[in-house]
Amino acid sequence: MYRSHNCGQLNATHINKEVTLAGWVQKSRDKGFMVWVDLRDRYGITQLIFDEQRTDKSVFEKAKSLGREFVIQVKGTVIERESKNANMATGDIEILVSELIVLNSAMLPPFTIEDDTDGGEETRMKYRYLDIRRNPVKNALLFRHKVAMEVRKYLSDLDFCEVETPYLIKSTPEGARDFVVPSRMNQGQFYALPQSPQTFKQLLMVGGMDKYFQIVKCFRDEDLRADRQPEFTQIDCEMAFVEQEDILNVFEGLTRHLLKELKGIEVAEFPRMTYEHAMKTYGNDKPDIRFEMKFGELNSTAQHKDFGVFNSAELVVGIAAPGCASYTRKEIDALIDWVKRPQIGASGMVYVKCEEDGTFKSSVDKFYDQSDLKKWAEATNAKAGDMIFVLSGPADKTRSQLSALRMELATRLGLRNPEVFAPLWVVDFPLLEWDEESGRYHAMHHPFTSPKPEDMKLIETEPGKVRANAYDMVLNGNEIGGGSIRIHDKELQSRMFSLLGFSPEQAEEQFGFLMNAFQFGAPPHGGLAFGLDRLVAILGGQETIRDFIAFPKNNSGRDVMIDAPSLIDDAQLKELCIRLDLK
Amino acid sequence: MYRSHNCGQLNATHINKEVTLAGWVQKSRDKGFMVWVDLRDRYGITQLIFDEQRTDKSVFEKAKSLGREFVIQVKGTVIERESKNANMATGDIEILVSELIVLNSAMLPPFTIEDDTDGGEETRMKYRYLDIRRNPVKNALLFRHKVAMEVRKYLSDLDFCEVETPYLIKSTPEGARDFVVPSRMNQGQFYALPQSPQTFKQLLMVGGMDKYFQIVKCFRDEDLRADRQPEFTQIDCEMAFVEQEDILNVFEGLTRHLLKELKGIEVAEFPRMTYEHAMKTYGNDKPDIRFEMKFGELNSTAQHKDFGVFNSAELVVGIAAPGCASYTRKEIDALIDWVKRPQIGASGMVYVKCEEDGTFKSSVDKFYDQSDLKKWAEATNAKAGDMIFVLSGPADKTRSQLSALRMELATRLGLRNPEVFAPLWVVDFPLLEWDEESGRYHAMHHPFTSPKPEDMKLIETEPGKVRANAYDMVLNGNEIGGGSIRIHDKELQSRMFSLLGFSPEQAEEQFGFLMNAFQFGAPPHGGLAFGLDRLVAILGGQETIRDFIAFPKNNSGRDVMIDAPSLIDDAQLKELCIRLDLK
Repeated sequence: MYRSHNCGQLNATHINKEVTLAGWVQKSRDKGFMVWVDLRDRYGITQLIFDEQRTDKSVFEKAKSLGREFVIQVKGTVIERESKNANMATGDIEILVSELIVLNSAMLPPFTIEDDTDGGEETRMKYRYLDIRRNPVKNALLFRHKVAMEVRKYLSDLDFCEVETPYLIKSTPEGARDFVVPSRMNQGQFYALPQSPQTFKQLLMVGGMDKYFQIVKCFRDEDLRADRQPEFTQIDCEMAFVEQEDILNVFEGLTRHLLKELKGIEVAEFPRMTYEHAMKTYGNDKPDIRFEMKFGELNSTAQHKDFGVFNSAELVVGIAAPGCASYTRKEIDALIDWVKRPQIGASGMVYVKCEEDGTFKSSVDKFYDQSDLKKWAEATNAKAGDMIFVLSGPADKTRSQLSALRMELATRLGLRNPEVFAPLWVVDFPLLEWDEESGRYHAMHHPFTSPKPEDMKLIETEPGKVRANAYDMVLNGNEIGGGSIRIHDKELQSRMFSLLGFSPEQAEEQFGFLMNAFQFGAPPHGGLAFGLDRLVAILGGQETIRDFIAFPKNNSGRDVMIDAPSLIDDAQLKELCIRLDLK
Repeated sequence: MYRSHNCGQLNATHINKEVTLAGWVQKSRDKGFMVWVDLRDRYGITQLIFDEQRTDKSVFEKAKSLGREFVIQVKGTVIERESKNANMATGDIEILVSELIVLNSAMLPPFTIEDDTDGGEETRMKYRYLDIRRNPVKNALLFRHKVAMEVRKYLSDLDFCEVETPYLIKSTPEGARDFVVPSRMNQGQFYALPQSPQTFKQLLMVGGMDKYFQIVKCFRDEDLRADRQPEFTQIDCEMAFVEQEDILNVFEGLTRHLLKELKGIEVAEFPRMTYEHAMKTYGNDKPDIRFEMKFGELNSTAQHKDFGVFNSAELVVGIAAPGCASYTRKEIDALIDWVKRPQIGASGMVYVKCEEDGTFKSSVDKFYDQSDLKKWAEATNAKAGDMIFVLSGPADKTRSQLSALRMELATRLGLRNPEVFAPLWVVDFPLLEWDEESGRYHAMHHPFTSPKPEDMKLIETEPGKVRANAYDMVLNGNEIGGGSIRIHDKELQSRMFSLLGFSPEQAEEQFGFLMNAFQFGAPPHGGLAFGLDRLVAILGGQETIRDFIAFPKNNSGRDVMIDAPSLIDDAQLKELCIRLDLK
């Protein structure tokens, strides 16, 4: 037994108790005749005291030699502190140390082990084991564990069964790029790491498991954007004999449970919004509804005046930025520059100040009179003191630009409070999306998503208009989960593959096992998957996922701590029957 | 809503209720004027009744056309059964059906969906989704889920934090063969899939996580023996500031908890046995102690008589098979043939019948008298009516042969009752074992295992005699978990790598990150890992793990259902900068 208590446990009730503690030296203060040491472990910090009068000389000397992050074990007596610290769980007491053992010394860490560290991202990643000693990272990992436990408990109590699906599966060209694993025993052949357990969970439904879930690693070999990881974790779920409504209810319940248990927040029933409505109102299929600034479409009031820019535009659309009528010319210009950056790509922006006296002042006063602008204010729900920003151009592009502006303004205005949670469902996603590059339709969700029966009549003539029984859960502007009712009929599934450009042979080769399974009594089924990394980060009030992953990879997919990936032996390559073919 | 209840839920309290059920047609009996259908889902079976008089004609006709495994939805009234079935949860009632919808038809399954199926292993694997509909497989998966939930709950309540470690890590030649994953973004380099999260969990201890666990997939590219899988699941654990005793107590507690919660069995404190004792007494480091038949060493009484075979042997050792004195000459010969098979490799076997009258009759009566044989009986703890079997030869080999015989006899004698649980700890494993092939020592557990301090004096002179702080948990003759106290000191770790034949450069290249971490304040730590597949199978009363894995691979590492591994596109190979180099 290295310790009788941990470093977060002792308080006034333990005074006069003999205790043994072990942990790391957070810091020490040497006043000459007295040495204080803050001893840290996962559970907290306890103050140790060594004093010339009361401490054995050799122990006292040893205490003076302790460096930061030394690992020590101490025996001593719990005594009352003279100056108490009400901010610390152990702030009422300290340990008068009688024995001190240095379990391990420590080199000076390359950055401070403090909540606000001086370490840069790359250094922290290289020494991630030191970074994890810091409260923000440690607490993020503990929080993640709590979330996962609550998810498992909630779903298990509803009779969901966690089933482990295989990691060594089959590569399919549909979707993102697979990571592949050469097989030594089956020369020239490869496994793939799963992008998701999609087909397996569907087979579990065919197999009668009824309610499945799994917290599972998934893999995508994509060029990494910031805050994407090549391996990521999903809460993957599937249910048989369900309609969309059943699924939404279960996972709305789960999310509500998490918010309540982990954040103490009760949220009302989640709003449900069609994809079409979300795009028209927020320019985005994952709207952040913590704040308003809904889109107001202005075509009817802004066109057919003398302003050519608007007249020639497919869409004229604006938002009212609350309280921004006071923006200076300089601030407005900066914002116009912001939307004109290549990442956003607007060609310009019109603004309308809604003065406190009810009048308007705009950058297009020579084309529009006060009554025109009043209509704009009505359409964008602008109040006195607001500023209306208006973009125009091709509809999809303009909506996406205005959505970016809306988010930027909300950030600047402090409207994206991470401790406010505004979940919603976005439903009725299109089944297909047109891909310019390949010149064909792609599945918006995946090829197993079932079209809405009432839209099936459009499938040959206007496939782009067919809606799917697909839904996303959105939280604070992030898609945290998505899913669909699946196809469970072989014929429809074949037709879908053919729509997506698969030849019958390709469909059979890649997904024959699934279509075959559908012939042996497949029940109606559907499900969804949450991105755990993102969910945990958002619940934890953070924008980035990296601190919620114990050992993340960098943007080149490298683990800089262990230095992976790395070269492997020629002998190993030979056994796998592969050769490098470097460019 | 496809159903108001499931198929295992309805009983006499529901009589006269209108219900909707959905599920699979288990079987139907058509008596002409009446049709009974057993409707099955995960939760049970409910009997449906369609009757010429009470059922609408079109529904009645449709009922007659239902085939096995059709997926249907029915509405109807719960009525009391005329002939009740007390063996079924729903045996008091049946459903008088008013509406019937066929949700999906089914081809005739390739094997019967019954507890005792007519399907062979390979067919069942190919149609695993049908196999999962069978109770034995379905219940095995549900049981596995329950075990995993209990493990998580127990450890979490003890402040263990589940941390997900990465799957894309670094390949190291030590240990078994890695599966590797070519990196597209880092050309010519490879990730490895983890054989275990060993180094990461140690880094978590350096990082102060204090108590870690994870239920995690691990990967080994080994030639598969029966009942081994290339991907398998571990309950992986690590604790800081612990001695061996602390770890044994925690995981003995966990195992006891599982036996109690899942099997209703209370077991006493686990016996602890040294490796040396286990090898001498059972010829095996994972002894099955559900039964006796301990080894009796006979050198002192059997040697220096005129029996040359024994005189020249390093070890003469026997066991007493209870009640086997009645074996016929034919049975004995069969057993002698059994030990002489190449898999066992004994060159012969001596036997001694312990007659009911206290006399002995042996195959070596011309060399040994009754008093000699009496000593053998004492050494093997043989009673009247038992048969002593004696093997001789090189010590290690002979022990291993006799151990195999002991297990075989126990199986034949019905002493391996799967519903009896006899756990124990085997401790004090050797640190190293000599490998003939490579002509060097290998780590018996792994290179991070700490030697016993009191044995350190032998490390240069007799490294094979150094014991480790390593332990295995053994249950019913299976190693279900193993672990060790780890090295937490850079110097000792370097020395260990050098003992294992690593050059300083190799050690640095492969494990530099770990030794580096040890310099920044590594706490004493240790842990263990359970094999979940095996643990669940044993708790479930089975010898083979395959039914406890949803989608297992066959002995060639293939998933015959999805047909993986498989060929991949040339384009994909090109992107990865590798070429096939088939022999």
